[in-house]
Amino acid sequence: MAGVDQEALFEFLLRMGDNTLILGHRVSEWCGHAPVLEEDIALANTALDLIGQTQMWLGLAGEVEGKGRSADDLAFLRDAWDFRNALMLELPNGDFGQTLMRQFLFDAWQVVMLGRLMQSSDERVAAIAAKASKEAAYHVERSGHTVVGLGDGTEVSHAKMQEALDYLYPYVGELFADDAVDQAMAEAGIAPSLESLREEYDALVGRVLAEATLTIPAGSYVHKGGRNGRIHTEHLGHLLTSMQWLQRAYPGASW
Amino acid sequence: MAGVDQEALFEFLLRMGDNTLILGHRVSEWCGHAPVLEEDIALANTALDLIGQTQMWLGLAGEVEGKGRSADDLAFLRDAWDFRNALMLELPNGDFGQTLMRQFLFDAWQVVMLGRLMQSSDERVAAIAAKASKEAAYHVERSGHTVVGLGDGTEVSHAKMQEALDYLYPYVGELFADDAVDQAMAEAGIAPSLESLREEYDALVGRVLAEATLTIPAGSYVHKGGRNGRIHTEHLGHLLTSMQWLQRAYPGASW
Repeated sequence: MAGVDQEALFEFLLRMGDNTLILGHRVSEWCGHAPVLEEDIALANTALDLIGQTQMWLGLAGEVEGKGRSADDLAFLRDAWDFRNALMLELPNGDFGQTLMRQFLFDAWQVVMLGRLMQSSDERVAAIAAKASKEAAYHVERSGHTVVGLGDGTEVSHAKMQEALDYLYPYVGELFADDAVDQAMAEAGIAPSLESLREEYDALVGRVLAEATLTIPAGSYVHKGGRNGRIHTEHLGHLLTSMQWLQRAYPGASW
Repeated sequence: MAGVDQEALFEFLLRMGDNTLILGHRVSEWCGHAPVLEEDIALANTALDLIGQTQMWLGLAGEVEGKGRSADDLAFLRDAWDFRNALMLELPNGDFGQTLMRQFLFDAWQVVMLGRLMQSSDERVAAIAAKASKEAAYHVERSGHTVVGLGDGTEVSHAKMQEALDYLYPYVGELFADDAVDQAMAEAGIAPSLESLREEYDALVGRVLAEATLTIPAGSYVHKGGRNGRIHTEHLGHLLTSMQWLQRAYPGASW
């Protein structure tokens, strides 16, 4: 990979891995608490898929960084300011509908993004994307169906899903906010510019939300700062205390 | 202190210090969230008093243990199974009324216990008790007034306080459940048997709850296992992840 900015590549890989790590942890919080058993198992499986993808992204990130940090080191031994996930993914779960709305909004981004990454000039990235995209395709189908089922469901479920969409939609823009890292990746052919994903994303999301009889809120404000680590919500710190406790309390612990 | 079982003394001191540490942490969770500003400040001050008492109890515990562990080491570097607080104190706060009901039920125990400990044959214990008892006297006056105000308040506040009492009262018995450690302390004249505090406690608590128009629930079941470390609720582990994170993530960090 001569000529590719390895620091930018490291950042890019952290962003991919932190997205799936943080969302995976959030989704795992549902384990044993979902409204019906099938959903409980489905959410646990989704969480496992996301953590599995994390292992690949952060494993490669550690390799690219070249300082001997493993995926586990990156997951469990960084503090909040070193995380690069989009803000939406660190928000508390809220109710089941809100959790599934977030899942859908992210799954849709993943499925579009991973489809492009399969053509990455970096074959390691392409290989991870190929593996992850199969899971993402299944995830978006499932979360999309649930969004439709609840959105176009009862009056109560519709109201809750609209509320979830109103709350979460202002976080979507961060997933498309290109910066220098994304530009470097695009120039090297490693990843698409995020902006270039927007049309396909909007079409997919628009179709599902229309079927769900939900309305995308009109505002243009975008919450961001997670992907570049400039600002995270207070929720990330609380999540990390729980997620990292074992490795912090028992350094080097392994199975 | 020739003849005094130092291991039992260590256990006793852990129990005293863990009670105030865990409750102090719980109460500190209200900081910035209490229903009115004065209560917010009052709760924060209560938390500070309890943490201050912890410093004394665990400091002496470390001294008695003789392995060079400081109060901070004991507070931040033990895992759940090594904690010796009564179970009531690790329960989540619940609403404001429930928090104050627990505070009162514990303050009443503290005030009676510390009064006796001022006559301890171990002058270090007596000195801590003398200092802490002034704070406890103030705490129980405050929490007692609040229990009366809310218990003998509106229909809603009365119902909430009765619910809190029904929930918490089965945890009170643990505060009086003598075991070998307590017997060793009583025999050495270091601390009273817990059973010997019960009459004074019941009189104090009974008087306040009667004024609060609240009814002590009839059941005789007692939740216990915290003081001897045999069993803690799942809530303690979650509390520790938050309380211990900084020292776990940054070992040896100091001001």
